[in-house]
Amino acid sequence: MIAGQYKEMLGTKSVIRTLSEKAAARAKVVGYGNVYDYSLGNPSIPVVQGFTDTLISLLRTQDPVELHGYSPTLGIPSVKEKIADSLRARFGIPYGPEHIFPTSAAAAALAHALRAVTVFGDEVLTFAPFFPEYHPYVNLTGARLRVAPPDTQNFQIDWEAAQKMIGEKTAAVLINTPNNPSGAVYSEATLKKLAALLEKKSREYGHTIYLISDEPYREIVFDHKQQPYVSRYYVDTIACYSFSKSLSLPGERIGYLAVNPACQEAETIVNMCGQISRGIGHNCPSSLMQLAMAESLDMTVDFSVYEKNRNLLYACLKENGFEVVKPAGTFYIFPKALEEDAAAFCEKALNYDLVLVPGDSFGCPGYFRMAYCMDTEKVERSLPVLQKFVRETYGK
Amino acid sequence: MIAGQYKEMLGTKSVIRTLSEKAAARAKVVGYGNVYDYSLGNPSIPVVQGFTDTLISLLRTQDPVELHGYSPTLGIPSVKEKIADSLRARFGIPYGPEHIFPTSAAAAALAHALRAVTVFGDEVLTFAPFFPEYHPYVNLTGARLRVAPPDTQNFQIDWEAAQKMIGEKTAAVLINTPNNPSGAVYSEATLKKLAALLEKKSREYGHTIYLISDEPYREIVFDHKQQPYVSRYYVDTIACYSFSKSLSLPGERIGYLAVNPACQEAETIVNMCGQISRGIGHNCPSSLMQLAMAESLDMTVDFSVYEKNRNLLYACLKENGFEVVKPAGTFYIFPKALEEDAAAFCEKALNYDLVLVPGDSFGCPGYFRMAYCMDTEKVERSLPVLQKFVRETYGK
Repeated sequence: MIAGQYKEMLGTKSVIRTLSEKAAARAKVVGYGNVYDYSLGNPSIPVVQGFTDTLISLLRTQDPVELHGYSPTLGIPSVKEKIADSLRARFGIPYGPEHIFPTSAAAAALAHALRAVTVFGDEVLTFAPFFPEYHPYVNLTGARLRVAPPDTQNFQIDWEAAQKMIGEKTAAVLINTPNNPSGAVYSEATLKKLAALLEKKSREYGHTIYLISDEPYREIVFDHKQQPYVSRYYVDTIACYSFSKSLSLPGERIGYLAVNPACQEAETIVNMCGQISRGIGHNCPSSLMQLAMAESLDMTVDFSVYEKNRNLLYACLKENGFEVVKPAGTFYIFPKALEEDAAAFCEKALNYDLVLVPGDSFGCPGYFRMAYCMDTEKVERSLPVLQKFVRETYGK
Repeated sequence: MIAGQYKEMLGTKSVIRTLSEKAAARAKVVGYGNVYDYSLGNPSIPVVQGFTDTLISLLRTQDPVELHGYSPTLGIPSVKEKIADSLRARFGIPYGPEHIFPTSAAAAALAHALRAVTVFGDEVLTFAPFFPEYHPYVNLTGARLRVAPPDTQNFQIDWEAAQKMIGEKTAAVLINTPNNPSGAVYSEATLKKLAALLEKKSREYGHTIYLISDEPYREIVFDHKQQPYVSRYYVDTIACYSFSKSLSLPGERIGYLAVNPACQEAETIVNMCGQISRGIGHNCPSSLMQLAMAESLDMTVDFSVYEKNRNLLYACLKENGFEVVKPAGTFYIFPKALEEDAAAFCEKALNYDLVLVPGDSFGCPGYFRMAYCMDTEKVERSLPVLQKFVRETYGK
């Protein structure tokens, strides 16, 4: 029998996808350069040449039978070792290869982490604004996603809501910092307070509440600052990492899951990932990609373009009367719309070939997201268009 | 809470894995060349140079942002088109790109297919001998794997058992031809009879029983013969393909799922795969691998080594008094052990540094598997060892 659960999902089309299709259609009419498509979070900076060179060198010099051979279920040992070394050196946590599980980017890391620490009927709490894919990521495991309302002051955490919503059934809390869509970076104070809350609630309910930290934007932080490393603040943390953004490799599906060595049953969780993998058809990321990634662990592309774009957009939005929190990282900005209905606001912007995404699906109605991973030249050309849209539509 | 379901699986270690670990330990003592490891089905023929050249050329000439960019949820359109074209030309079925879903090899194809056509509590029937990973592949979806006993005469299908075991709850039948572990190739007669049975049973129970065809060995058929293409015999067939064996790329995790266009809700099933993917963290295989694979669809490595090895082993086994069906394809042979307890038989063989896998986990006690994907020189050297083992242990 066709599985109704998945068939029904076909009806509900992603808002982002629909918008980017509209943008593509419009681009055919007015030209790609004249559509300001702020909808998709697709990195625009090419991968570092060193990564490409490593791939070519592996293909040229390695025995192909070994190079393209099966990766062990838990990942290629030398790759796991190098990831652990890099994390240990950077963040001072004594990771070993036994705490690392290479994955097909962050989505697969989350798929494994969620299955490892939840059972059917458990709840997973996340904080708005949040990445809408968390719905299928969590709900299709058999657990249930709950969303705490946003702290729109600075896009940290609404503590009153968090307090109330972490209950008996909460198996894990899922965070994403630097955050898509807000661009906020959880501060050290936020992470300490969250850790204290999770410790208290874990004691109260007599079971560990795991922290699943989705961190594909970990390195994209501006103003010479850094994201405080989440796993340092709470031992029962599973970090889910991806090179999609840091190396501009979203299509290669390469990342890893790192369990804090001090976490409850840390090694068991990694071993369980090997079993989970059998059920979900994962069986490790590409062996070639694992090997190339292991040589590029401490590289990133040059994020200065994203920072320049952030500065330009933030200044323009402020000038045009928007309420907006200055993003500390990522390549997103998340201003308040100029009318209550953000969908209506974004619809009107489309008339100016500005493609903006309403915040509703991110759990934050009344706001909208702009993904500014594009050439600065295009951002610059979009600014007078944005101004024109605001003046003509809202008389500002 | 740690998910007990997966934690419990940690106790049960794969027989094949345990054996290959023993072989590796023994190789450290007597040297790799002196251990005749017939346990692992890891291709031993290097990938065709054309594939490596395509990868290097893509890396050298393509815009890296596009090359490594997100693949659409349903796969890269040009890749899907080329797969459909190739299948149409080879097998005469009018596939279009809308019937193709690129996957991380056959394991992921099966993970998607199984979720698309079963719901919790459904049964999936397979025929012994079968690939033991079908247990987690099926059972972790919420459906239940049932195994029909083997037809040990020729490793086709035990029809009486099949008749009885397809019931109200059977949502799908899962076959693997050419077969791991037997090396058997289902004949046209077998496929026609199976189709007739599934049509009859579908009518009887008032719902479509899907045929899921796991075909990573599709091209590895000897004696200038071919595997009759399964989807031609039964419309409601989902073919699950992998390039792991045909191109010797097991670590790259690249393959696809192809739904027969005449299948019930064919396009819906492919679209559902995009949704299933969100839940299991799949999100397409590597974009680089998709693009390279699309240029290599009609290539295979040279399988003559496997055929030569099959001939040598089959002759030697017959000479030494084994009951054995001559494999028509793959790189496996599946003889009857010389005592009832195949595990005991394989344990004794280990004393001669012959690593054989008992048939119990393949649903066929009393038999054992040899994976002969290795250098012919080594197979040749193993033959007198096999003879010595048989003479000394069983007095033959």
